[in-house]
Amino acid sequence: MTNSVLVEVLRGGIVESTHRGAVAVFDADGKPVWEIGDTAQPVFPRSAVKAIQALPLVESGAADAYGFGDRELALACASHSGEPPHVELARAMLAKAGLDETALECGAHWPSSHGATLALARAGRAPNTLHNNCSGKHSGFLCTCVHSGIAHRGYVKAGHASQEMVREAMQAVTGAAHDADHRGTDGCSIPTYAVPLRSFALGFARMATGAGFEPVRARAAKRLLSACMAEPFFVAGTGRSDVAMMEAAPSRIFVKGGAEGVFCAALPELGLGIALKCDDGAGRAAEVMVAAVLAKLLQADQTLAAKLTEQANPPIESRIGAKVGALRPTATLN
Amino acid sequence: MTNSVLVEVLRGGIVESTHRGAVAVFDADGKPVWEIGDTAQPVFPRSAVKAIQALPLVESGAADAYGFGDRELALACASHSGEPPHVELARAMLAKAGLDETALECGAHWPSSHGATLALARAGRAPNTLHNNCSGKHSGFLCTCVHSGIAHRGYVKAGHASQEMVREAMQAVTGAAHDADHRGTDGCSIPTYAVPLRSFALGFARMATGAGFEPVRARAAKRLLSACMAEPFFVAGTGRSDVAMMEAAPSRIFVKGGAEGVFCAALPELGLGIALKCDDGAGRAAEVMVAAVLAKLLQADQTLAAKLTEQANPPIESRIGAKVGALRPTATLN
Repeated sequence: MTNSVLVEVLRGGIVESTHRGAVAVFDADGKPVWEIGDTAQPVFPRSAVKAIQALPLVESGAADAYGFGDRELALACASHSGEPPHVELARAMLAKAGLDETALECGAHWPSSHGATLALARAGRAPNTLHNNCSGKHSGFLCTCVHSGIAHRGYVKAGHASQEMVREAMQAVTGAAHDADHRGTDGCSIPTYAVPLRSFALGFARMATGAGFEPVRARAAKRLLSACMAEPFFVAGTGRSDVAMMEAAPSRIFVKGGAEGVFCAALPELGLGIALKCDDGAGRAAEVMVAAVLAKLLQADQTLAAKLTEQANPPIESRIGAKVGALRPTATLN
Repeated sequence: MTNSVLVEVLRGGIVESTHRGAVAVFDADGKPVWEIGDTAQPVFPRSAVKAIQALPLVESGAADAYGFGDRELALACASHSGEPPHVELARAMLAKAGLDETALECGAHWPSSHGATLALARAGRAPNTLHNNCSGKHSGFLCTCVHSGIAHRGYVKAGHASQEMVREAMQAVTGAAHDADHRGTDGCSIPTYAVPLRSFALGFARMATGAGFEPVRARAAKRLLSACMAEPFFVAGTGRSDVAMMEAAPSRIFVKGGAEGVFCAALPELGLGIALKCDDGAGRAAEVMVAAVLAKLLQADQTLAAKLTEQANPPIESRIGAKVGALRPTATLN
């Protein structure tokens, strides 16, 4: 099936570009609450499921052993912008396990924060693996390995005990088989599995409610989502949409984007999980989609819904800062 | 109508994202040679038509009066990366007309070249209007104004003599009315008009052949396209796809990308013009589309077609440089 246009990009009053996509909203019993488009399509969730991938860090006891609080757990679930607080916290997490950035196998890249990139360059420095947007997640993997007595070298590879723990968590939470036939490699070198979009919506409804989980997992899931909602800056960074949405309703909205136009979200008060994918992989459109979906689901709170609706209609500006267009959700999302 | 998927983004062996689009290939008599999707849809051509917008610079005699050669004309048609040679040449063009960067009304932004941005930051500097990717085009507008005795202040605004010259050229070359109802504002503050995609294909077939033009315009058009093909670096910059395609067949391929997934191209030897738009505005997909279309049209030259086909299938790499996926054109483009 062909997914509908969910986001329009306007210049002047004219539609310049369009983005299609699919949206799944599920409760923790597996009941679809709202579905748009092909929610059975296999989707690589990329970084949108980092909170699920962080379950072993908490469940193994590593997070407690190393004294990790909300900030460290948020960073373990983060695609951070490589700003100094992110970099320093990842370094500190590794230090707790007696490691440093040379243990990270995620590769290095310039910070996604333009300001952080400029600051590094002005200081005559270059990025290292701590600046990788996934360094918090990888630090979590490494801490789990060290705490559990697992040799960490090669921890990014499919089949390593670290990735097997992650795969077990992903399968159990989403209810979808994560097998080699559906495996790809993420930008940070770990395996990522394409499974039906709707299974991520179910998974995040479970993460928010703990429904169907053993007590240890239920507590770990709630702790991770709570940490992200308490410290949204450490999940993303300055000016990022994930932060803006979580800050719009402190401790009520969990939201996490991933590469190629994916978002996962959870609304604990409603017991709902959300997963969406923009067909063409555009982050700008996925941000509009998730803000519009959240505004609709939370419409009973008019002030909050208005804030989210504003986030779902971001302006497009010229190089001199004049508004020359905007993105907007289509009626399908209203 | 719904345009077909023309480009797939693969991770492992699995399609992760898809891009739809429309392609028009016309000859200079207005005969459609190859059309895919809705080629009648109004499209903002953005920077893909800068060569047409540069016609008044040549036709007015300004380019000759200021001694502009291939590099200056290429820069007038460019979306450059803000590398030092681009910046210095724009500065020199303005100086010929007795102006400097304060006359530019395009706004400033950090160079699109990451390397140029880092170099500026390391030197403790910030970008000015010369670093704007459109500074060459704007320098051309300003030189035309000064040479023609037109007050240049406000030259970016619809209705200013400068933009009226550009609009006249755009209408005459494309055969499509450019009126206020179809007007938006480009990132560099000048008007841009949404007209049928196919009219740009016709326009570039005319630009390449001069068919239907008065001699002055025919000479100006050929001179501009020749300049771009002779100096592709000044049309774009290091590592850019436009440069790679033009360098694959020196003086045989003209190609120019624009924001929001647009490309225009011309093949003088075949007398053809090409225009395409990726529905969702993705540059990565538009690059694949144009490379695939060029490979098909030039298939008689097997070596060249192989080079272009390689450009139409770029790899996706992880942060450690491992190949984890690729983009590829769908069968519709073959």
